[in-house]
Amino acid sequence: MPITSNQVRFGKDGLIPAIVQQHDTGEVLMLAWMDRTALERTIAEGRTVFWSRSRQEYWRKGDTSGHTQAVKSLSIDCDGDAILVRVEQVGAACHTGTHSCFDTRELWPTPGEGSIDE
Amino acid sequence: MPITSNQVRFGKDGLIPAIVQQHDTGEVLMLAWMDRTALERTIAEGRTVFWSRSRQEYWRKGDTSGHTQAVKSLSIDCDGDAILVRVEQVGAACHTGTHSCFDTRELWPTPGEGSIDE
Repeated sequence: MPITSNQVRFGKDGLIPAIVQQHDTGEVLMLAWMDRTALERTIAEGRTVFWSRSRQEYWRKGDTSGHTQAVKSLSIDCDGDAILVRVEQVGAACHTGTHSCFDTRELWPTPGEGSIDE
Repeated sequence: MPITSNQVRFGKDGLIPAIVQQHDTGEVLMLAWMDRTALERTIAEGRTVFWSRSRQEYWRKGDTSGHTQAVKSLSIDCDGDAILVRVEQVGAACHTGTHSCFDTRELWPTPGEGSIDE
């Protein structure tokens, strides 16, 4: 089931950013990248599949960690160049062990680990 | 107040994706892009400032529409290559008039405007 390019606009590198959100609490868990194949696999398999820019390979969330993401819904934005995936997260979404990848590094208003230089 | 590059990792194009979320409801409103200046301005001014890739200019949300975003908190993810901004949104976040840019184009499970070809 091909996705038409006028619906989903992949970047020059063939990738589109995908926001992953816990479907019931609204917590934003992570941002990862999909190419066309990863998006089609995500829809076909009902589990998130991403393209790893660092490893240059597909990566089905949870295959090694067990921390799967079952897809509840998937939307594209008004411009077709960002994806929002609502999921049921099993365990920690972040490879560091935190529930969300955005849990620990606040830049503002209370700079911690991600503090800003004076 | 410069932001050190080992904290925030901008892409090759100098940009980082910023997820904008309504701080109290958890609704994901939009995804936009920041360069270093836009991020520093966002923190300094307490309102979201983005870099428009299509117009190639800075864009302080609400300056033309009145639909401002007051920043409540700002975090970077574990890898430092994505930003989550929690805001108080005034009016519609989306230029199409919908509250969220992700409101209308569901690809799955109930394909509508963003339907997938057979």
